Amino acid sequence: MKEINEYVEAHKQRFLDELFELIRIPSISSLPEHKDDMYKAAEKWKEFLLAAGADKAEVMKTDGNPVTYGEKIIDPKAPTVLVYGHMDVMPVDPLELWNTDPFDPVVKDKKIWARGADDDKGQSFMHAKAFEYLVQSGKLRCNVKFLIEGEEEIGSPNLPKFCKKNKKLLKTDVILVSDTSMIAPDVPSITTGLRGLAYWQVEITGPNVDLHSGIYGGAVANPINVLAKMIAQTLDDEGRILIPGFYDDVVEVSKEERSLMAKAPFSLQEYKKSIGVKELAGEKGYTTNERAGIRPSFDVCGIWGGYTGEGAKTILPSKAYAKISTRLVPNQDYTKIEKLFAEYFESIAPKSVDVKVAYLHGGPSYVCPIDLPAYKAAEKAYTDVYGKQPVPVRSGGSIPIIAAFEEILGVKSVLMGFGLGSDAIHSPNENYPLEQFYNGIRTIPLFYNYFAEEAKK
Amino acid sequence: MKEINEYVEAHKQRFLDELFELIRIPSISSLPEHKDDMYKAAEKWKEFLLAAGADKAEVMKTDGNPVTYGEKIIDPKAPTVLVYGHMDVMPVDPLELWNTDPFDPVVKDKKIWARGADDDKGQSFMHAKAFEYLVQSGKLRCNVKFLIEGEEEIGSPNLPKFCKKNKKLLKTDVILVSDTSMIAPDVPSITTGLRGLAYWQVEITGPNVDLHSGIYGGAVANPINVLAKMIAQTLDDEGRILIPGFYDDVVEVSKEERSLMAKAPFSLQEYKKSIGVKELAGEKGYTTNERAGIRPSFDVCGIWGGYTGEGAKTILPSKAYAKISTRLVPNQDYTKIEKLFAEYFESIAPKSVDVKVAYLHGGPSYVCPIDLPAYKAAEKAYTDVYGKQPVPVRSGGSIPIIAAFEEILGVKSVLMGFGLGSDAIHSPNENYPLEQFYNGIRTIPLFYNYFAEEAKK
Repeated sequence: MKEINEYVEAHKQRFLDELFELIRIPSISSLPEHKDDMYKAAEKWKEFLLAAGADKAEVMKTDGNPVTYGEKIIDPKAPTVLVYGHMDVMPVDPLELWNTDPFDPVVKDKKIWARGADDDKGQSFMHAKAFEYLVQSGKLRCNVKFLIEGEEEIGSPNLPKFCKKNKKLLKTDVILVSDTSMIAPDVPSITTGLRGLAYWQVEITGPNVDLHSGIYGGAVANPINVLAKMIAQTLDDEGRILIPGFYDDVVEVSKEERSLMAKAPFSLQEYKKSIGVKELAGEKGYTTNERAGIRPSFDVCGIWGGYTGEGAKTILPSKAYAKISTRLVPNQDYTKIEKLFAEYFESIAPKSVDVKVAYLHGGPSYVCPIDLPAYKAAEKAYTDVYGKQPVPVRSGGSIPIIAAFEEILGVKSVLMGFGLGSDAIHSPNENYPLEQFYNGIRTIPLFYNYFAEEAKK
Repeated sequence: MKEINEYVEAHKQRFLDELFELIRIPSISSLPEHKDDMYKAAEKWKEFLLAAGADKAEVMKTDGNPVTYGEKIIDPKAPTVLVYGHMDVMPVDPLELWNTDPFDPVVKDKKIWARGADDDKGQSFMHAKAFEYLVQSGKLRCNVKFLIEGEEEIGSPNLPKFCKKNKKLLKTDVILVSDTSMIAPDVPSITTGLRGLAYWQVEITGPNVDLHSGIYGGAVANPINVLAKMIAQTLDDEGRILIPGFYDDVVEVSKEERSLMAKAPFSLQEYKKSIGVKELAGEKGYTTNERAGIRPSFDVCGIWGGYTGEGAKTILPSKAYAKISTRLVPNQDYTKIEKLFAEYFESIAPKSVDVKVAYLHGGPSYVCPIDLPAYKAAEKAYTDVYGKQPVPVRSGGSIPIIAAFEEILGVKSVLMGFGLGSDAIHSPNENYPLEQFYNGIRTIPLFYNYFAEEAKK
């Protein structure tokens, strides 16, 4: 502990400088104009891994954005840890809400402010530095593999195929990921469940051109009116999703587990205050944490159509669009939900409009058992650094590839997240507290030590 | 008739050239960046009126965009006609759907293609040329006043005040307006009723920033989900508007009048084909023409919120917006409806969001009796040019100022429209058939003659 603390202290500024080089590459995977940046980010990661002590590192092709793979094999008999992270980030709009340039990181109020500061450049980079320390200090007791991808924020569409093709290369005993949050800086937690996701874009077409709302209004179906009604028909007043069959595979969480979950420290007042709402809303019969963790959800992530400029334009629009997502819980099959939603949404459309449902992406949910040796190792590592045993929590977010890893590579992942709820990931002014960044670098080497011990048992 | 036909024939190209000068000024009243263009258009009209033979013409201030006023007083005892038109046009987006530059008019397929080609630059300009002919030929038997305004497309917010201030200047026996359509080139019609309008912008605010839909989805009210539900709650499945009190002042049109209306030539098949829809929709118990003419309507003219870029961004948005309009029928008071909607929309908002309703503009409905002398004069003029008696029709569009004229100046308006349903006013590729443009110039002088006769009776 002392030695790693000293190492972090001695290299603090360099760690930041290196991370900032990565953050300055605007690697937004959902925008095609940033294609080149994905390659730049992948090359930067290769450079990092070689500098940190990897035996080899390379930028490898997929059917989409490249991945960076690196490894250090110390002993074929030693346990192997595969570190997964992602170098791509979310778009930054609305840009006017940022206080600083999202791709020009700054440190202020003891936090790093930038897109990717937490998700996932900041968090994945901690692994490069923890690995550097273990190599430099000669204390590495595991084989280490790195797999850093560039399409996580768009649902990792090409990584499963890459994994299938490279099963041998990626052979490991456990996958280690830092892409989640803890409850608070003084309440360490480890995410043991992730929700799945299915995401669509819908397009409603009425007349073939925007019409004058005075001349046609009332006589021709308005695609925005229709879309609003269709969305309203998909979610009832008690927060239940009305797609037939949607809940069929949902396994209700036991009373015992729900009462354990309820013991996690949580202030409804602070939660509401942090997001600026007077009241919360959600599925009847569940608490806020349950709604976000163990229950599916339905959100329109974006909507547009008709006249959206200044002032009043009296049209009956030709088209209306929405981006719609559902979060799924363990045992719900996202490929089945994909079809259920499309069928339902098409079935409720009146004949006066055309509806197109395009599936954009999705992924399964995931559960990590808390008696897994790697989980135990992570638990001990956090306890050493934070002075408290971490709480296992179910998170509402999705990392679609985690479930795919289990299916393809046959191994579980441990989600050692160091983010905080206030990090504003996916939002303007994303940030990452320096203390969490450095604590991550302190905690990860301990994981390797404990995992090597656990694996010997 | 022969003489006016020869005059039109001799000056055809010049008429177009002059109109095109006006069209090239992008006088979009709803966009503040076109403020200067409003002044340019007003000066252009002044130039037109003086050149056509007005005794005087001037650009006059209002609290908003200027108006152009011009007059020729031939005899204080002669009847006076005030020509009303508007020089402002609608926005042009979505620009990518235009086949030509909206502000660079071209003639193709015997039509003028440009924003304002019909509404209302093309139609109002016919009056300048009809007036020119009457002056040139020495056949003008009425006093003529022109009032061309620059805020019709945003609801003429400042013209009522201008009219109150200038009652003497605007004193007239009738107001003549070309800003409506006929049924078809071979089915002349005169609009005898106009729907009123009320238009709002609503803003729904949930959390104070876009949230991660995985972490918060299901536990925090999504303002787009909420807005969709609120819109759905405002219109039922049978096309009835659910705002309490909305229909209180609606006077049902008599069976007799409805059966007369039903005699107007109308092909449901062609109507559907012209706008590219398979089925129509609207209030139960009414025909398509009734829905658009004698019944109120509710249309969301625009909607936006959340992520609307390419690909998938998994957010629970902070805000959602919509532009919402209702069309009103005679006896509905738009100032009362303004409040009813705002109260209703605020009342149905859940406490988990904030809702703001901003009233943008509105205007009353209007009815023109078909036994009015000026209506009779218009009827005869159309009959001479088109060879058929024009059909009186109720239109769904609104010209808010027409009802205000009646209230302030105490005179009725006659709506001698020469537009066609296919002119795509307010839409991309607005157009105006040359034949309608020239027929308008041929018909208007006959109106003046018949009106001078009718007024003598």
